[in-house]
Amino acid sequence: MTTKSHLGANLTLDVDRERRQGLPEVVYGPGKTVEEIAAAATELLEVNSGPVIITRIDDVAAAQVLAAVPGGAHVPEARLLIWRPAAQGQFTLGVVTAGTADGPVASEAAAIASCIGMRVLDIRDVGVAGIDRVLKRVDDLRACHAVVVVAGMEGALASVVGGLVACPVVAVPTSTGYGAALEGVTALLAMLTSCAAGVTVVNIDSGFAAAMAAYRLTQALWPSAQ
Amino acid sequence: MTTKSHLGANLTLDVDRERRQGLPEVVYGPGKTVEEIAAAATELLEVNSGPVIITRIDDVAAAQVLAAVPGGAHVPEARLLIWRPAAQGQFTLGVVTAGTADGPVASEAAAIASCIGMRVLDIRDVGVAGIDRVLKRVDDLRACHAVVVVAGMEGALASVVGGLVACPVVAVPTSTGYGAALEGVTALLAMLTSCAAGVTVVNIDSGFAAAMAAYRLTQALWPSAQ
Amino acid sequence: MTTKSHLGANLTLDVDRERRQGLPEVVYGPGKTVEEIAAAATELLEVNSGPVIITRIDDVAAAQVLAAVPGGAHVPEARLLIWRPAAQGQFTLGVVTAGTADGPVASEAAAIASCIGMRVLDIRDVGVAGIDRVLKRVDDLRACHAVVVVAGMEGALASVVGGLVACPVVAVPTSTGYGAALEGVTALLAMLTSCAAGVTVVNIDSGFAAAMAAYRLTQALWPSAQ
Amino acid sequence: MTTKSHLGANLTLDVDRERRQGLPEVVYGPGKTVEEIAAAATELLEVNSGPVIITRIDDVAAAQVLAAVPGGAHVPEARLLIWRPAAQGQFTLGVVTAGTADGPVASEAAAIASCIGMRVLDIRDVGVAGIDRVLKRVDDLRACHAVVVVAGMEGALASVVGGLVACPVVAVPTSTGYGAALEGVTALLAMLTSCAAGVTVVNIDSGFAAAMAAYRLTQALWPSAQ
Amino acid sequence: MTTKSHLGANLTLDVDRERRQGLPEVVYGPGKTVEEIAAAATELLEVNSGPVIITRIDDVAAAQVLAAVPGGAHVPEARLLIWRPAAQGQFTLGVVTAGTADGPVASEAAAIASCIGMRVLDIRDVGVAGIDRVLKRVDDLRACHAVVVVAGMEGALASVVGGLVACPVVAVPTSTGYGAALEGVTALLAMLTSCAAGVTVVNIDSGFAAAMAAYRLTQALWPSAQ
Amino acid sequence: MTTKSHLGANLTLDVDRERRQGLPEVVYGPGKTVEEIAAAATELLEVNSGPVIITRIDDVAAAQVLAAVPGGAHVPEARLLIWRPAAQGQFTLGVVTAGTADGPVASEAAAIASCIGMRVLDIRDVGVAGIDRVLKRVDDLRACHAVVVVAGMEGALASVVGGLVACPVVAVPTSTGYGAALEGVTALLAMLTSCAAGVTVVNIDSGFAAAMAAYRLTQALWPSAQ
Amino acid sequence: MTTKSHLGANLTLDVDRERRQGLPEVVYGPGKTVEEIAAAATELLEVNSGPVIITRIDDVAAAQVLAAVPGGAHVPEARLLIWRPAAQGQFTLGVVTAGTADGPVASEAAAIASCIGMRVLDIRDVGVAGIDRVLKRVDDLRACHAVVVVAGMEGALASVVGGLVACPVVAVPTSTGYGAALEGVTALLAMLTSCAAGVTVVNIDSGFAAAMAAYRLTQALWPSAQ
Amino acid sequence: MTTKSHLGANLTLDVDRERRQGLPEVVYGPGKTVEEIAAAATELLEVNSGPVIITRIDDVAAAQVLAAVPGGAHVPEARLLIWRPAAQGQFTLGVVTAGTADGPVASEAAAIASCIGMRVLDIRDVGVAGIDRVLKRVDDLRACHAVVVVAGMEGALASVVGGLVACPVVAVPTSTGYGAALEGVTALLAMLTSCAAGVTVVNIDSGFAAAMAAYRLTQALWPSAQ
Repeated sequence: MTTKSHLGANLTLDVDRERRQGLPEVVYGPGKTVEEIAAAATELLEVNSGPVIITRIDDVAAAQVLAAVPGGAHVPEARLLIWRPAAQGQFTLGVVTAGTADGPVASEAAAIASCIGMRVLDIRDVGVAGIDRVLKRVDDLRACHAVVVVAGMEGALASVVGGLVACPVVAVPTSTGYGAALEGVTALLAMLTSCAAGVTVVNIDSGFAAAMAAYRLTQALWPSAQ
Repeated sequence: MTTKSHLGANLTLDVDRERRQGLPEVVYGPGKTVEEIAAAATELLEVNSGPVIITRIDDVAAAQVLAAVPGGAHVPEARLLIWRPAAQGQFTLGVVTAGTADGPVASEAAAIASCIGMRVLDIRDVGVAGIDRVLKRVDDLRACHAVVVVAGMEGALASVVGGLVACPVVAVPTSTGYGAALEGVTALLAMLTSCAAGVTVVNIDSGFAAAMAAYRLTQALWPSAQ
Repeated sequence: MTTKSHLGANLTLDVDRERRQGLPEVVYGPGKTVEEIAAAATELLEVNSGPVIITRIDDVAAAQVLAAVPGGAHVPEARLLIWRPAAQGQFTLGVVTAGTADGPVASEAAAIASCIGMRVLDIRDVGVAGIDRVLKRVDDLRACHAVVVVAGMEGALASVVGGLVACPVVAVPTSTGYGAALEGVTALLAMLTSCAAGVTVVNIDSGFAAAMAAYRLTQALWPSAQ
Repeated sequence: MTTKSHLGANLTLDVDRERRQGLPEVVYGPGKTVEEIAAAATELLEVNSGPVIITRIDDVAAAQVLAAVPGGAHVPEARLLIWRPAAQGQFTLGVVTAGTADGPVASEAAAIASCIGMRVLDIRDVGVAGIDRVLKRVDDLRACHAVVVVAGMEGALASVVGGLVACPVVAVPTSTGYGAALEGVTALLAMLTSCAAGVTVVNIDSGFAAAMAAYRLTQALWPSAQ
Repeated sequence: MTTKSHLGANLTLDVDRERRQGLPEVVYGPGKTVEEIAAAATELLEVNSGPVIITRIDDVAAAQVLAAVPGGAHVPEARLLIWRPAAQGQFTLGVVTAGTADGPVASEAAAIASCIGMRVLDIRDVGVAGIDRVLKRVDDLRACHAVVVVAGMEGALASVVGGLVACPVVAVPTSTGYGAALEGVTALLAMLTSCAAGVTVVNIDSGFAAAMAAYRLTQALWPSAQ
Repeated sequence: MTTKSHLGANLTLDVDRERRQGLPEVVYGPGKTVEEIAAAATELLEVNSGPVIITRIDDVAAAQVLAAVPGGAHVPEARLLIWRPAAQGQFTLGVVTAGTADGPVASEAAAIASCIGMRVLDIRDVGVAGIDRVLKRVDDLRACHAVVVVAGMEGALASVVGGLVACPVVAVPTSTGYGAALEGVTALLAMLTSCAAGVTVVNIDSGFAAAMAAYRLTQALWPSAQ
Repeated sequence: MTTKSHLGANLTLDVDRERRQGLPEVVYGPGKTVEEIAAAATELLEVNSGPVIITRIDDVAAAQVLAAVPGGAHVPEARLLIWRPAAQGQFTLGVVTAGTADGPVASEAAAIASCIGMRVLDIRDVGVAGIDRVLKRVDDLRACHAVVVVAGMEGALASVVGGLVACPVVAVPTSTGYGAALEGVTALLAMLTSCAAGVTVVNIDSGFAAAMAAYRLTQALWPSAQ
Repeated sequence: MTTKSHLGANLTLDVDRERRQGLPEVVYGPGKTVEEIAAAATELLEVNSGPVIITRIDDVAAAQVLAAVPGGAHVPEARLLIWRPAAQGQFTLGVVTAGTADGPVASEAAAIASCIGMRVLDIRDVGVAGIDRVLKRVDDLRACHAVVVVAGMEGALASVVGGLVACPVVAVPTSTGYGAALEGVTALLAMLTSCAAGVTVVNIDSGFAAAMAAYRLTQALWPSAQ
């Protein structure tokens, strides 16, 4: 059922999603007014019972929305607003980056994963140009249920990690780099043609998509919806 | 350790992969001679203990390899050779196609998944132009641990299935279609920008990659390697 | 005949278009000065007899033009200026969006369609990730003479609607999305390869083009020009 | 309801489409065996009552299918098989080409349109390099309910025709040309950015899509489905 | 000989060009300081004897350079600075645009052509959507020694003009348009595949290149260099 | 006037072109039957009075057409059939190639230019990797009225020649090269961005377009049409 | 060993690189705070013994970092900060540009090369449109151990230089140019398909990469690492 | 000096290249007749004194050329013909591949390098999905003067090797892979954006270019030309 009391004419929420997929709709911030975001958060908090998340929100809007909808938390490096985070479960997600510039995308993935109940193992700056860095962390990576690899430029870290662990690997290309990096398209194509079998890929810079892919894994292990 | 007794000078197998990831290396057929393929199969059968698989092999070569390395099975519609298939486990994988032309890619995914121990639920020809077709199968899809969606042209089926089930969805774009389908690139891009959160994508026409991604899921559930 | 009394040296209007196609030329705002826009509106109001429309005009310019050419209306969400709107006819146009960010493009299509005499049925936020949303509106959609589907990202809604209705479907890809959405190119390609037969496509973000395509349909039904 | 008595395991027909959209599913020939095509034709002839069409079928397969499913007609220049063509209705469709090489695509559009009940006005070789050719046919074009423009290379004919007639114009880019024609992509992009307002576009070389778009127009005029 | 008295360390002029090609080097403004531009103009005025031209200079920089190097003229709509324009010769160049937004590119072509000695026939806003507009000017176009066609979007005007005149036609694609216009790439590709034989093309938005191509034609007629 | 006595239903000639542009329509061979080509040649020979040319015809078809339409000549390396070549005029066209593989495209340009009345100066294999080769020919090049530069790979020869001569330079990119040569697109883009001012470009591999561009130059010098 | 005393949580340096490759890690400035850059410089100065370099840093940040980490030098035209430059060795690197706009990229290459111990021969503005300019410098170029060619637009200078010298040539495409220059992609593709055998290419605008490629050459001559 | 006694009209050799760059021109086989290739080989053997090489020649043509020009050797896996190979010098070149399908490109690089005097260290099948394979060979790689890395798909091996050795690394992307590998473009882009500083790149599948780049290195060490 779609209740519209808090929402303007131009905003419809998929409030049924929690029932169908175990998690309320996550609201994408860009293109929405502060009022629309606040209304969406209020609506989801009322009609659903799980975590409520706004993505890609800047600091100014975040403060205004929090003033209107109390009880939430702002995670500025991940550009997130979060209400009602889930309790930590048993699923451990590794989030690994190649370089410093991949940080914000990794932060988005890690913060969302944490908010919806995963333990997160954060490993930063282990790009393949200094291959020892990732090799030192193999045992940590092998202890995860799944690993998200965040890398720009040529995205080679996804292939190396994909060959080191047996668990699911979700590769997130980032728009890091210039020229032939083509704003992330090069990393995207490289990850899709990874020589490490069974690596899967999400959209450029989408830490959100990676976290949601990991969430789907938790549903295969311990189904909460349907 | 890399034993080379059966292999020619130009072929090195990653025989350590079974220890590292729970499954022997899968051999990609194209560009290899019958002798090289037979040597690879023999080597893997000796040094590893799990299923041995050759992909994308044509009928003539398949017969020649089987004559040289007995005990295998040929799956012609999936262009596979298989020795020592795994016993069926508890993991159910849905393999869903949009149209008839997506069939061979789905067959590759299904046959590999089956060979490495998954139950496979095969659902064909449920493209979104007749949306009732996939809606009728929702209960079946929701009973799977993961779903592989195989579609060409605009690849919209991945988004629809992604919104219907909570479990992992791996989208395989196919080169079905002409003109603006750009030999699968359109479906690939469309799946990467799916409005269904957390759908992941593999390379065009790669039923193999989808099956291996599903295999990684089984390792998250019941780790056999590491 | 081209009268130039109101126009500067660099602006020629196709004032014959109303005779040829039943509707005065629609003026594209960007790249024109307020004086040029006002002169064009004045000219069209004098020489033609139908609705006069300026597209993609910002709020400041709109106010200045209206001050110079009274009698018009500003539709800010659609970035339009309108004089002399047509009386509502019998043709009903459905305008359907996938998500919130597609709203401004839909508003442009709807406002122009309304201004040139169509009834408009506005359906928002029924993207395929929650397929129930569009299924609930099938009867409404089937009551339209034509449907405009506005969607970004993977644009899958066009295929689903195209399979549900028998009437003409005009798909408008939007630049909604990031990364692999390629500023609307992905949705454009996806819509062109739709598995729903006979869906046609216009340029990215062009609500204007969709409304004009619908207008051409009215000319097939009840020709006013030629 | 999906009856499967005539179909193999890998083929599902959307037999409900005639009820939903007024016309049986049209079967795309490539990638299907003669047996599959014959089974599909038989099935559609039994379960539906309208015209049955197979597209893009070569001469050898066409003869074999006709031997198995009597009563059909082969249109070789359009690569079609047709059973049970509709009676001619009141809708006149203009099919216009720029050059000789666009002929087969136009033939596909014209033959399908004719088979599903339209009158077809065939105008060939009126490309804009000799602009007089199309100007001589303006009265004929203005007498149509809709016009399909088939052109490769730079596809300029769509813009010229779009400016001459008031009725719907469906542009079909063709893969005619070499080098910078990019196998039809240049014409596709050019048609999408036509300066003639309201021209719509279908996939490269898809005479079928153009005919189906025209069919949807007939449904707006005289609805037969729903 | 390269004299460097007026130039800084980072600027070398091709002062030999006037001897080799009949015209001094034209200086591209962007990326150069006011001092560098003034030094280049001074140098060229001293060492060469023909017209001196700076392209793509904004109003502020233009005023500063003119203050430092007196005797020049500023053509703001063409973003040019000009010293020592040539006397008008016998060569007539037609400069034709499709729409208002193509104006600045046409102005650059026309002003440079005029400065280096051509008569210019300026025809604006005769895009093919209202084909009568260009047809009315055929006699004028046929009186030119060459015609420059400036058009964005689908660039169809180049093909139509190319079919109407026998003289050289240089097509200039512009970045006018949005979405599928791809910032001028669509017009560029369309012009390169023009069905009008012998149309040649220069870079996107390069009124300068078109004028220089026309200048080369004058050298074929009445060689001044070599 | 379009006479159709020799032509089939699917072929219309622009027989008015000779009056409008001084030269009969040139017939593009691919996609036409021997009968259609023979009919076109016959028609053009009857209705027009200038040279008749068929392009891109293979040896077998050429022999068959010549048997049906006597009096013509076959130029196999240029894939041309020619009837009624023009007398040699005063215009000298340089045709220059970078490497051996560019030869067939240059031959097409040279043979057509010769057939329509130009003197041709043929210079082969002077690519810039051995810059002395082209420098030795500068005096020859400067004696031409125009120069066609035919080059694949990076197409740099066009820039070098463009800087050496003052007359018109028409650059023809070829599909010579592999990988990053992108079947001629790289040379095309490189030539469009040539640092030699006023170089113009035609479609990939189009020796025909270059010859026709040169023909237009002759019309500027000594108009024969209009 | 990775010491972290000076670094924040989000920054890991590859301090082992000097041992492995003879030179400390070079720090890419964009996306890092002044504090992070200062910490990285401090760390590298302590743990390594060679030159410390920050790239692509703007003037404001450079001043702030220098205040925090004394002893460094700012090279504004190359956007570099440098501490502990190496003594000049025997290796001479030529750095050659085609035009003025390529200057900043060349400055980056030259300044880094100089800082890590090379002699630099700087040759500017010798683009191929005036081929004499580079020919005059052949003896200078032949005296170098390696040559870096920096060019935008069509990048032809790399091919000409590549054919004149026997030593290694590293081509750097720049984003100079507009339209078909595609922000450096055209020059990149052109350089990759150079007809001069053995020219190698680095990323667009990457003077840094060219200098590092030259550094690798010095390691082949006089290995300092490993 | 260009002697033409052995060559046909359409073939010019750069016989001066040996003097200029220390090595005779290498002849690219495709597009040349057996007679042309034999003539070129004969000419180079007479006029130059160094190794003579024909590339990309098939087995049949190779046998025919060898019959006409005795004394040569055929290297079929590298598709080469070689006369007068150089004596082995002191320069050691590592040639490393990621997978079996990269073999022919590596063979071309290795055979040419050997023929022109280098020692070659051949390392095959050490792709990053099994990272141990390349790590085991680090000491061997560090003993080389330069390393050529040959890899298709995502090309990640170039980055890993680039981070392990200090000497020059030339990356050769191959067309190995399908779908998103885009026939080598993905590997090309990935290598150009390598996170390992100073890796340089040559054209797709060009083992020849890599060998020639290595040859240029030998000229920096021990100049033989100029």
